[in-house]
Amino acid sequence: MTISPDTPAETKQGLDGQAAGQVVISVDAMGGDRGPASVVAGLVLSAHKNPRIAFILHGDEAVLAPLVAKHPELSGRCTLRHAARTVSMEDKPSQVMRNGQGTSMWSCIESVKQGEATVAVSCGNTGALMAISMIRLRKLPGVNRPAIACLWPSRSAGGFNVMLDVGADVKADAEDLVQFATMGASYARNGLNLKRPRVGLLNVGTEENKGRPELKQAYEMMPAVSAVGDFDFVGFVEGGDIPGDRVDVIVTDGFSGNVALKTGEGTAKLLADFMREAFSGSFLTKIAAIFAIGALRRLQKRMDPRRVNGGVFLGLNGTVVKSHGSADATGVSAAIKLAFDLAKSGFNERLAARVASAGQARQDEAQDIDKSGVI
Amino acid sequence: MTISPDTPAETKQGLDGQAAGQVVISVDAMGGDRGPASVVAGLVLSAHKNPRIAFILHGDEAVLAPLVAKHPELSGRCTLRHAARTVSMEDKPSQVMRNGQGTSMWSCIESVKQGEATVAVSCGNTGALMAISMIRLRKLPGVNRPAIACLWPSRSAGGFNVMLDVGADVKADAEDLVQFATMGASYARNGLNLKRPRVGLLNVGTEENKGRPELKQAYEMMPAVSAVGDFDFVGFVEGGDIPGDRVDVIVTDGFSGNVALKTGEGTAKLLADFMREAFSGSFLTKIAAIFAIGALRRLQKRMDPRRVNGGVFLGLNGTVVKSHGSADATGVSAAIKLAFDLAKSGFNERLAARVASAGQARQDEAQDIDKSGVI
Repeated sequence: MTISPDTPAETKQGLDGQAAGQVVISVDAMGGDRGPASVVAGLVLSAHKNPRIAFILHGDEAVLAPLVAKHPELSGRCTLRHAARTVSMEDKPSQVMRNGQGTSMWSCIESVKQGEATVAVSCGNTGALMAISMIRLRKLPGVNRPAIACLWPSRSAGGFNVMLDVGADVKADAEDLVQFATMGASYARNGLNLKRPRVGLLNVGTEENKGRPELKQAYEMMPAVSAVGDFDFVGFVEGGDIPGDRVDVIVTDGFSGNVALKTGEGTAKLLADFMREAFSGSFLTKIAAIFAIGALRRLQKRMDPRRVNGGVFLGLNGTVVKSHGSADATGVSAAIKLAFDLAKSGFNERLAARVASAGQARQDEAQDIDKSGVI
Repeated sequence: MTISPDTPAETKQGLDGQAAGQVVISVDAMGGDRGPASVVAGLVLSAHKNPRIAFILHGDEAVLAPLVAKHPELSGRCTLRHAARTVSMEDKPSQVMRNGQGTSMWSCIESVKQGEATVAVSCGNTGALMAISMIRLRKLPGVNRPAIACLWPSRSAGGFNVMLDVGADVKADAEDLVQFATMGASYARNGLNLKRPRVGLLNVGTEENKGRPELKQAYEMMPAVSAVGDFDFVGFVEGGDIPGDRVDVIVTDGFSGNVALKTGEGTAKLLADFMREAFSGSFLTKIAAIFAIGALRRLQKRMDPRRVNGGVFLGLNGTVVKSHGSADATGVSAAIKLAFDLAKSGFNERLAARVASAGQARQDEAQDIDKSGVI
């Protein structure tokens, strides 16, 4: 089998039977904290910036039709798909898995399953979205455990690192971690335009003998997989490396990844508050803030979490982008841009090819060991 | 058995046979990244601020004697204890455990073991310090797994939260987590002056059914222990709550805790860099920075990690404060202040009493269940 190199290329659009050059994104209009108006406002922003984008929008037609009608930018580029029910933030994934049909989230994933759209975007309940995605799209051949990858502001040349898993599952064994490395590298290549991503395993120290057993085992397995997966394995990294420039991809289990993600977000928010307070104390500091306004705006833009809105589900037969629940128009538009970029590069086919060849290489290696008489 | 309430009180000084009212701190002068001069400078700062503090300083006498002689503030308050060898940052804990005698770190812990000093402070290798502390001080009766607790800048009234374990061990079972809660609450009471700390279990969601099995089990065990341990159990918390004001104490295993700590530090450092860059762009922003200097200084002080320098080892027969390896004089002085406050309040005896009564309560409960015929 030959591997299609998964560097971004614009060869895939039009595969879905759309108007020439158009990329269709399936969007769940309901279930976010700010309601469908914010989602539609995000669509408008994206449609305005990108003439090659089209949408299938899922949700209550009575609510959505008037919202969409207000915006001529969406005319002819936004198909409504009625779904009477909404998955709430409180709904349990297991229940949604059984009774989720008829919800806007289910309908949104269904459009990807049916090949009408290339990527799905939702601001709703993460657990429920993963459950529906798993049951409808199914795992890619050879994938044990799908993962959620996020982009993290960093000192790396591109300004961002990839971290996974940030919450698809609370555990991951050595095999899963190695597969996360292959998937994360593929995502970094397509999402961040990196030819040969540097991948690190998150641990509590950088020495080889540190950490949990599954980490030591994954460490041993990594070199063979990195050769096929076309990435550099740099070894163990620590929490401080997540926003650093030592690696492009940080691999960890969904528990540690989720803790790290939320700790980072919480710390950034605390410091932003401290900064606001520092500049709103006295009359003099208020004057100072006026003088510093350019610098402060630049800083705020760089720290703005809405600019990197979107966790991506990896390892399924289709790409799903999970937007932040509280995303406003800017945030939704960022998630749609990510979805567009991934659809345009034919990301999921490339990822599938990488996973398949990594699996093949591991099997070959096992056979070689077998033949040599070593167990 | 009666419990001595572990609210801070000044009844313990003098117990160590020192001059009336003096508290003796054992300090490892070697092994930090900046060398013994920084440590001695930290001692000088502390001695200057606090007339009730005295030191036993461990390390190479030929190096230390001239450093100490330079500072009249230390005269008569600093005993030198010669140790020819130094534990380096690269030394493996297991080796130090076997061959560590004769190092300044070993000697530093020995002073606490012998009752010459109440608390030990070191800037050296964390793993080696924990290994020596375990082997020389031994675990408190009833403690399965010691933990390292850190203070985290937060929105809570006191300005800080406690998190543990941040790296004593990579794993913790349900029993350990419950014990961390008791120890962390005791530390918050003595270190942060909180009468009834709010304790949360770190998880990837706040719903009862989320997370790993040991977390669900610890969740069930917590109410009984919180009654005896005199703390409020608020349930599961997430990474975003670590710098928040929902809880005072965050309980987790040493792997997740270490990842969170280093991620938070890394994020804070990245944002500080972004801020510096924002204010050093053009001539105009440099002028703005001059106007904003008061606000910027206040912000910098609030974000300064040196102000909260010191992880505390909990669960041993003696208190050990681990200062940051790269601590300068201000950082060392902060670690010494923490050591002084804990020594003064008789913290370790109070912690031991809490652990003992929590263990007793758990046994009583087990017997009650046994008698009632429920297994």
